[in-house]
Amino acid sequence: MTPVFDFDTVHFDEKKERLLILDQTRLPGKVCYISLKTQDQIIDAIATLKVRGAPAIGITAAFALCLGMKPFIGLSFDAFYTHFKEVGAQLAQARPTAVNLSWAIGRMEKTILRNRKAAIPEILEAMRSEACRIKEEDKIMCRNIGIHGLSLLKPGWGILTHCNAGHLAASWYGTALSPIYTGQEMGYHFRVFADETRPLLQGARLTAFELQYAGVDTTLICDNMASVVMEKGLVQAVLTGCDRVACNGDTANKIGTNTLAILARHYGIPFYICAPSSTIDADCKTGQNIVIEERSPEEITEKWYRKRMAPENIKVFNPAFDITHHSLITAFITEKGVVCPPFDFTPKENDKKS
Amino acid sequence: MTPVFDFDTVHFDEKKERLLILDQTRLPGKVCYISLKTQDQIIDAIATLKVRGAPAIGITAAFALCLGMKPFIGLSFDAFYTHFKEVGAQLAQARPTAVNLSWAIGRMEKTILRNRKAAIPEILEAMRSEACRIKEEDKIMCRNIGIHGLSLLKPGWGILTHCNAGHLAASWYGTALSPIYTGQEMGYHFRVFADETRPLLQGARLTAFELQYAGVDTTLICDNMASVVMEKGLVQAVLTGCDRVACNGDTANKIGTNTLAILARHYGIPFYICAPSSTIDADCKTGQNIVIEERSPEEITEKWYRKRMAPENIKVFNPAFDITHHSLITAFITEKGVVCPPFDFTPKENDKKS
Repeated sequence: MTPVFDFDTVHFDEKKERLLILDQTRLPGKVCYISLKTQDQIIDAIATLKVRGAPAIGITAAFALCLGMKPFIGLSFDAFYTHFKEVGAQLAQARPTAVNLSWAIGRMEKTILRNRKAAIPEILEAMRSEACRIKEEDKIMCRNIGIHGLSLLKPGWGILTHCNAGHLAASWYGTALSPIYTGQEMGYHFRVFADETRPLLQGARLTAFELQYAGVDTTLICDNMASVVMEKGLVQAVLTGCDRVACNGDTANKIGTNTLAILARHYGIPFYICAPSSTIDADCKTGQNIVIEERSPEEITEKWYRKRMAPENIKVFNPAFDITHHSLITAFITEKGVVCPPFDFTPKENDKKS
Repeated sequence: MTPVFDFDTVHFDEKKERLLILDQTRLPGKVCYISLKTQDQIIDAIATLKVRGAPAIGITAAFALCLGMKPFIGLSFDAFYTHFKEVGAQLAQARPTAVNLSWAIGRMEKTILRNRKAAIPEILEAMRSEACRIKEEDKIMCRNIGIHGLSLLKPGWGILTHCNAGHLAASWYGTALSPIYTGQEMGYHFRVFADETRPLLQGARLTAFELQYAGVDTTLICDNMASVVMEKGLVQAVLTGCDRVACNGDTANKIGTNTLAILARHYGIPFYICAPSSTIDADCKTGQNIVIEERSPEEITEKWYRKRMAPENIKVFNPAFDITHHSLITAFITEKGVVCPPFDFTPKENDKKS
């Protein structure tokens, strides 16, 4: 099969020792890469959302540390490690709520400690290998979600998605969009409806762009039009990604997701969450334990617009995520397979010990 | 009680023989009136949405004809009437889908024909009286919807609304917002959540403005946040207006309305449609008979924005309205009272004859 994308969202150029990142803030109007050589440049790219999506941020962070630690090649291990802790702490601040950022930093730290007896050039080489491994693992995860997800879908189906959980958010086909692209490789001819996803418009700017690029039959709608599309019989499945899954299956994802789940239930359409099993939070019993970030009013009243579109001083409620109750989820599609209800992701005693 | 508004959306200035219209395209940033003296100016104001909302358009059209026919004061009745037909036809083209426009023209025509034996100055005077009567009837209709609606609400309740069916759309408190303003007069202290209403943002631009102006506790949300607000227990009733009601109670209103009805049912919250009984279409058996207007893709991809927010050539589905199934509607609030299910608005034989 030929992959539906001929570009990488995050690419490490070994020869020139630089990270090439597709600048997502310029999409959909401009497709251009920025070349990043220093840790500071990469921190800026993460903080300003030039690169976004949990897996893509993790991969970027891993390569950022490879580049960021290069200047310290002449130091002793202790001095090198001390600098690593500083560099890692700076990087983690680029987007404090991105779990994959600190997760990638943790993996690089373990790599350094595992190689503490080696010379610094060898440690740097081990870090580079680890960063490549993180990216490779992500590719396999995406690929497997695509294959497992596709087993639930039929050629010609209409599929509704929300926000962006695709190629731009990861190293391969992403999560929610991976079954769609896998089907595209195999001639499934899906018709995809992409919610624009207010207020940040990730659906209009990013999902519509990447689906169109991949040649998928794509229709953009406003979030409040999903019900009509379902009612007309144009949608046979809803696929979304997610940010966190509680042990009982309650799921946090981009604001608007739980509306889609309620609508899908109303119209008798299956609603699937696509996510790596690492998204399950063993410390989180139910959705009630998940704190929802509230973001600035300006995202709704001003951002993107030529002029302010709401009265001055109007109160605004802008939750970034919502919780979809587990009873509304038909199944989870993970890299390990399809998980059907009843959901119980509570870690077993054995898992806890390991 | 003191009315919560100290301004009119459409005001006829008898002394200066001009129509003053609050320019809604400048809201919420600028509150300014435009003075219209000719038929052409008024047609332009209607076509460019400077005045909008079914009742407000009807009132504007009636006064437009008074001003538009003034130059023909010296003619015979037959010549006057011929000119009226021309002027009326031009006016009807300003917004061809606005039912109230042709309805108001029809009422003015009947007034002319009823007075055919009178001198032209007297006919012009009768037309002015009829226009004032149309506005007065609209005020009473709004007021009664407010009173009947308020009987269903309790002080301190949270109320969710969609699009704009308020003071700006009518001559008094509007329809969906009338119970809220009537409660505001009486110290009910409602907390109102206004959907921004993509793609044209009537909620953000108009409803948030007029609620804030009236001193109502108002919070602006994106359409996809209504579910969270309901889930949190912040909303005890949903009130919207409507564009057309079928005989079985199926209701056409701004896109996004039927999602709110499904969410309200899911959370066990009453969902009310507020509308004058003239909105019931006796020729329309069910919602399936209502044709939904699809509007231009640019409303979603470009309008309001500093730059295009979706890829070039992306397919877009942009239905302006949706149909709420009658089974999801708790009750209709009309100027005649509250109508509970089962809904049967089929005209009786007597009605048909009259």
